[in-house]
Amino acid sequence: MQKKLRAHLKKIYKYSLSATAAEKIVTENVIYDFSKNLLKIQGKKYNLSKYKNIYIVGFGKASAALGLAIEKILKAKITDGIIITKYGHSQKLEKIKVCEAGHPLPDENSIKYTKELLALVDKANSDDLVIVLISGGGSALLALPVDESISLDDKQKLTKLLLNCGAEITEINSIRKFISAVKSGKLSQRIAPADSIALIISDVIGDRIDIIASGPTADYFETNAEDCLEILKKYNLLNTTPKSIKNFITKNISKKPLRKCEYKKTDNFLILNNFRVLRAAAEISKKIGYIPLILSSSINGETREIAKMHIAIADEIIKNKQRRKKPICLISGGETTVTVKGSGLGGRNQEFVLAALIEIYKRQLSNIAVASVGTDGTDGPTDAAGAWCCAGDYEKAINVGLNPQKCLDDNDSYNFFKSINNLIITGPTGTNIMDLRMILIK
Amino acid sequence: MQKKLRAHLKKIYKYSLSATAAEKIVTENVIYDFSKNLLKIQGKKYNLSKYKNIYIVGFGKASAALGLAIEKILKAKITDGIIITKYGHSQKLEKIKVCEAGHPLPDENSIKYTKELLALVDKANSDDLVIVLISGGGSALLALPVDESISLDDKQKLTKLLLNCGAEITEINSIRKFISAVKSGKLSQRIAPADSIALIISDVIGDRIDIIASGPTADYFETNAEDCLEILKKYNLLNTTPKSIKNFITKNISKKPLRKCEYKKTDNFLILNNFRVLRAAAEISKKIGYIPLILSSSINGETREIAKMHIAIADEIIKNKQRRKKPICLISGGETTVTVKGSGLGGRNQEFVLAALIEIYKRQLSNIAVASVGTDGTDGPTDAAGAWCCAGDYEKAINVGLNPQKCLDDNDSYNFFKSINNLIITGPTGTNIMDLRMILIK
Repeated sequence: MQKKLRAHLKKIYKYSLSATAAEKIVTENVIYDFSKNLLKIQGKKYNLSKYKNIYIVGFGKASAALGLAIEKILKAKITDGIIITKYGHSQKLEKIKVCEAGHPLPDENSIKYTKELLALVDKANSDDLVIVLISGGGSALLALPVDESISLDDKQKLTKLLLNCGAEITEINSIRKFISAVKSGKLSQRIAPADSIALIISDVIGDRIDIIASGPTADYFETNAEDCLEILKKYNLLNTTPKSIKNFITKNISKKPLRKCEYKKTDNFLILNNFRVLRAAAEISKKIGYIPLILSSSINGETREIAKMHIAIADEIIKNKQRRKKPICLISGGETTVTVKGSGLGGRNQEFVLAALIEIYKRQLSNIAVASVGTDGTDGPTDAAGAWCCAGDYEKAINVGLNPQKCLDDNDSYNFFKSINNLIITGPTGTNIMDLRMILIK
Repeated sequence: MQKKLRAHLKKIYKYSLSATAAEKIVTENVIYDFSKNLLKIQGKKYNLSKYKNIYIVGFGKASAALGLAIEKILKAKITDGIIITKYGHSQKLEKIKVCEAGHPLPDENSIKYTKELLALVDKANSDDLVIVLISGGGSALLALPVDESISLDDKQKLTKLLLNCGAEITEINSIRKFISAVKSGKLSQRIAPADSIALIISDVIGDRIDIIASGPTADYFETNAEDCLEILKKYNLLNTTPKSIKNFITKNISKKPLRKCEYKKTDNFLILNNFRVLRAAAEISKKIGYIPLILSSSINGETREIAKMHIAIADEIIKNKQRRKKPICLISGGETTVTVKGSGLGGRNQEFVLAALIEIYKRQLSNIAVASVGTDGTDGPTDAAGAWCCAGDYEKAINVGLNPQKCLDDNDSYNFFKSINNLIITGPTGTNIMDLRMILIK
């Protein structure tokens, strides 16, 4: 039984990840008609004859995979290109240079290659086209302070301060945008006067173009110096904010923010989001005999609490078994958070499965199996994409000397699942659309 | 629109609460055949001719309502009776004495009337029958320390510590049982040699007879001193636990717990649980034009995180609107916890609605309304049963000078909803089956 459920879970996530790999998605969304030299993206047509040069730039965890897909379609037409991806996420491309940089924190390579990328788009003129390939992780990979006086260190220091002060992500991004040379539509400005198209893979809840990778091709601005100062004041960060940043903000007070549409807008196409991987999981689970139930593609909140609610829903389904003839596959997505209190190793997906296992044990449920994977193949600072478990694994863990609750308290889900051989390891997947959770209920 | 949604929410919870009132439920489960002197409970028959005396004892928030119902059925047959309910939850009975005591914390009256109740059951002999009416809240109302050395003050101190540390109700009850003279089957022991029947309303997830009201008529024991010590350690309460209790636990380490069936068992009948109120909500919401969707009757976890997941599910339903023609009523039950960090006033139901409102605002959802009520009519230490909200109430609150996030951080949901006139006040309902949450999605 355990073996069968494990095989089913594997089938479901493998199918779902390959169904949402960048290459497949680009092929579905982007069609090139060679005879007419016409590029069609989600129904919109671009006559490529009018362009002298086509440049490709990209950044994000799935950007090399996106680059590979676009090369396959447009190879002969591409003049030049550069893509910045996370270490270990490269693919070998022919026309496009692929570089690697730091994530989740930007590093010197982020700066270096961002400058190189900007130098490339600076070459683009009004008779050129720039295609921008965007996926999550782009915030760290495409990073350049707006002012020479601001160092990467200062930027990182501020980011850390903001992350630890309890500020909301929109507030954090407001400031990060303001001091950046590329975020929040600034890349689009830089690309003008050339035309530009962006193909975007969303790794955020709500799929907002201005939020994904901090929105370098988004078409509006919200932040001004006054807002930034207000946020720093609100969280008592005025004295700890690096001087270079405080000075930059202060000297821009009362300067009008860029108005909308002062530059040629980018045509932004969202080609993939989390719901798509849930739909894929629903398809394949149906095919192998389950009734799929999609809960939501936008689940956030503290991981261990969210796991409890998933199991509570599964518990109700188990209790009402008489009403159905087939097993159920409960599917959910989005991205939860982990408030780290322990010193163990793990990620939100592994922690989800561990918390779920504890709840399964507490409720004495059987005939249930759970898996959760980061669709990008990375879960926290580990080599695993996620983990899986089955009713009975709690006892199995106890038998090998593990204390599930203690491991959870210590945020040590990685070592827990490693010990009972329940890690899911995929390597880079070529996609990045938050998480996929599956609960099989016999 | 807001007015209509509010009216619908009111209709749903009012109907659901009256469908699960003790009187209605007892009538459904207990039938007395006068001509044969036969009592039928869920199909099981009791020939009352064999009993000399019938005693009624009861405890819990709904116990007076249960007493009223049982008096209507058996009045002429009752010899004597005593019921302990929460202050303000009395009903006037003819044969049964109704007393009031402290809840959620036991007080001197709990002790006094528990002793009186025990004196009554001590009178019962092998040719007598004791009918025990149990509902949630019984843990505090039927309370007597097992050892003279433990004072009520010490017991209360520990209960407070346990309630505020984020411990789960099963953990809290484990310790409370261990130091009690009546919990965990100890009342049944005391009733023997008389026969006994218990009618039980469940206010706990899983409906375990040994957990409800700490299981005074349950037929097994699980808690031992080691478990208690483990729980105190887990929540860092070792240094704050009153000495008398710590000493009592320590001196019982390694002593075997009571074995099963050392006394005449009580016939326990679960006559009502949370799922029933969800079913009622489903019925009425269907009647007024909604598609009801029951998520689970056993939702636990930290309230504000659980609220987020509810709204994430609602968000998905809103996004996929094209697939349905009718509005949805999302229904859930169970009981969440609140880790109190602030100094405000509130309860889990009001906090649920406040956290949901913030999430609705963050996601910019419209056409959605939320309500959550404690089915017993009490939510935390307030006079409200819960609260309701509607998309737009966030802005309404801001306009009257409230800061929703700050109110949530301060656990001040009561004053928040009071200020915008969104409290739900029902008074005692005559039932007590955890919470009812409803989300209307147009």
